[in-house]
Amino acid sequence: MNNLLISKVRPWGGELVDIVVTEGVISEIAPAADDPGPGLEGGGRLILPALSDVHLHLDSSCLGLPVRPYTGEPGRWGRIMNDRKNWRTAERSVAERATFTLAVAIANGATRIRTHAQVDVDSGLEKFEGVAAARERYADVADVEIVAFPQVGILLEAGCADLLDAALRAGADLIGGIDPCEIDRDPVRHLDVVFDLAERHQVGVDIHLHEAGELGLFTTALILDRVEALGMQGRVTISHARSLCSGLPGVPAAIDRLAAAEVAITHAAGSRGWELPLIALAEAGVRVGVGMDGQRDFWSPYGNGDMLDRAWQLAFTNGFSTDQEIEHALAVATWGGAGILDRGLRPLDRLGLHPGFAPGDPAEFVLVDAPSPTAAVMDRPGARTVVHRGAVVSVDTDLDGFSMPGRCE
Amino acid sequence: MNNLLISKVRPWGGELVDIVVTEGVISEIAPAADDPGPGLEGGGRLILPALSDVHLHLDSSCLGLPVRPYTGEPGRWGRIMNDRKNWRTAERSVAERATFTLAVAIANGATRIRTHAQVDVDSGLEKFEGVAAARERYADVADVEIVAFPQVGILLEAGCADLLDAALRAGADLIGGIDPCEIDRDPVRHLDVVFDLAERHQVGVDIHLHEAGELGLFTTALILDRVEALGMQGRVTISHARSLCSGLPGVPAAIDRLAAAEVAITHAAGSRGWELPLIALAEAGVRVGVGMDGQRDFWSPYGNGDMLDRAWQLAFTNGFSTDQEIEHALAVATWGGAGILDRGLRPLDRLGLHPGFAPGDPAEFVLVDAPSPTAAVMDRPGARTVVHRGAVVSVDTDLDGFSMPGRCE
Repeated sequence: MNNLLISKVRPWGGELVDIVVTEGVISEIAPAADDPGPGLEGGGRLILPALSDVHLHLDSSCLGLPVRPYTGEPGRWGRIMNDRKNWRTAERSVAERATFTLAVAIANGATRIRTHAQVDVDSGLEKFEGVAAARERYADVADVEIVAFPQVGILLEAGCADLLDAALRAGADLIGGIDPCEIDRDPVRHLDVVFDLAERHQVGVDIHLHEAGELGLFTTALILDRVEALGMQGRVTISHARSLCSGLPGVPAAIDRLAAAEVAITHAAGSRGWELPLIALAEAGVRVGVGMDGQRDFWSPYGNGDMLDRAWQLAFTNGFSTDQEIEHALAVATWGGAGILDRGLRPLDRLGLHPGFAPGDPAEFVLVDAPSPTAAVMDRPGARTVVHRGAVVSVDTDLDGFSMPGRCE
Repeated sequence: MNNLLISKVRPWGGELVDIVVTEGVISEIAPAADDPGPGLEGGGRLILPALSDVHLHLDSSCLGLPVRPYTGEPGRWGRIMNDRKNWRTAERSVAERATFTLAVAIANGATRIRTHAQVDVDSGLEKFEGVAAARERYADVADVEIVAFPQVGILLEAGCADLLDAALRAGADLIGGIDPCEIDRDPVRHLDVVFDLAERHQVGVDIHLHEAGELGLFTTALILDRVEALGMQGRVTISHARSLCSGLPGVPAAIDRLAAAEVAITHAAGSRGWELPLIALAEAGVRVGVGMDGQRDFWSPYGNGDMLDRAWQLAFTNGFSTDQEIEHALAVATWGGAGILDRGLRPLDRLGLHPGFAPGDPAEFVLVDAPSPTAAVMDRPGARTVVHRGAVVSVDTDLDGFSMPGRCE
């Protein structure tokens, strides 16, 4: 934990201040002094809480490599199998690709990350180990949680549950799950394995739930039953939560129950039926974060490693146009996700909060050359300074194309 | 019209070729020669048909100026009135802002443009004249059509129809219209004024139609009645055409009728209910183009003057992920819009077309440093070379922040 003076910065675009960081947290914020002394000179830039990428697939990312044509079958299963067929020939190893993608994320200002690592009978723990190597490489620069993620389901291929168990023994932080009805077609047994592993390893849960409409609401209720019965409030996340985007009459009650059970939601800011009711979730007090998801991988060519770009996408897909709305999208992409990884941070329970700049808040920042938060989201300026645990960890790092940076700075 | 040899380029990412341009059109395409002779050296770059921005509001754009907070009322009318209240104090004149925005569009590779210019009793012809000045400034560099656009309706404020008439006499190329039910609340009289002006001035029609669902389908049918009765096939465009995004049972029949009446559709690639059925429109043979719409104006802070970015948005909002789909979005943003301005170009009637590179096609190009069309859409590389009517009009022009370039090159 570090001490640092950050001078002449504008938190959330407000007045020019100096920020004193002591032992990795904000100890003082004061109007900018004429001669503040040595430290990080902000030059009047905007300062924001660091971006948080809380739904990322570091293992599948091919950022920095040429876009490959998609050659698989349509649909989710086609994409899963397209990855299985091709991931071993992705030019660089999982560790190399995960390390590069993590470096891009950090250089763009995301220092709080939750990534999935696929565990299945085809890849065993190879993908997990590649992601763990990337985390280790940047251990001083970013906080990274890893989910042991059963992308291909748990019940379809013998041995998957044992591999998930092995990943958790090897250091995975959470147990994942995926579409218990649609993939394994046995939601109770799927969720029993997931929550049993969570209990045995005393880890949190993060379940991919692409299931739409009534089906997704049913699975959501099954998850909530277990959260409540097992006392896992505050330790479970549903990723994507597509059924909440459905507008069905059951959605408000599901949101209230998620809030009461302190289940968090992460998503990828998708279009065409993947738009979460962001305001309703915030008003209910549900913690919501956003992430880059897969990037230039064997599923899809989208994604560029920039969570500020994803904040734009979040605002755009929600039809946000006022400053207050766009700042809310940015708050979700920074403080919102951070509050999923660190339950000590208060949730974004209403619009117009500008969190992260009270004494005691973590010194986890990104500095951007923009006149306002809205301008930062619209223009996504490239040159950024990144502060992690009170230390400057990246200054205008340009990671254009594939390279193997020694570290971010 | 110019002659030019463009060497070592890859049309739509294909094989390396040399392109001979004679009198502004392609006269020959041949495998790249070792020593092609003087001309534009492509260096192996991707070459695409020039981008076409066929739904643009040059008069309202504040690109290059700081984002202003939105201070108006919600909704469409609130935005219209927010513009009316603020446009005169936008730091730069309409002509300056329109000229800068046009320069950005061209530098990014859009040489075929249809812009609206608002005509109402508040601004008179001031906005039209500003846009006309921008067009004049870059007359050698881009083809620009101007729509005399009754943003505030035609019937609500006395004198608007006369102003539209004056704009057409002053050189507007098309007559506009807007939401005949929702704004003027008298669709027949609104459309009668529009089509009467079109007939008297022998100009085309381009009607903004934000009206949703059944209402928009009703207005679409009223427009089609007039196109058919007046023999205006091929000369009418509906902008936004939101009702076609509704998924209502009446949509396929409306699309068939639009195709038969050769009515074109332009849109802005919006999210949340503004996603056109792009594939169905292409299969029916309807000409579809896309545009930047308003940019950083008194409606909304979105937009950056880059039609390649808008091609990404079009692909994203349509959920496109295969190369063929993403290339279709790019084809709409290039050739698709061009075919609305120039009916001599064939429409994009199916996926997988790579138009624009047959002998006789116009020498209207953008060169991008990308390995494939999909990569160009995903990465949107900045440095571009732009060819208009067989002449190089912009090379890597960077218009970052407000400036008044002498010309684009």
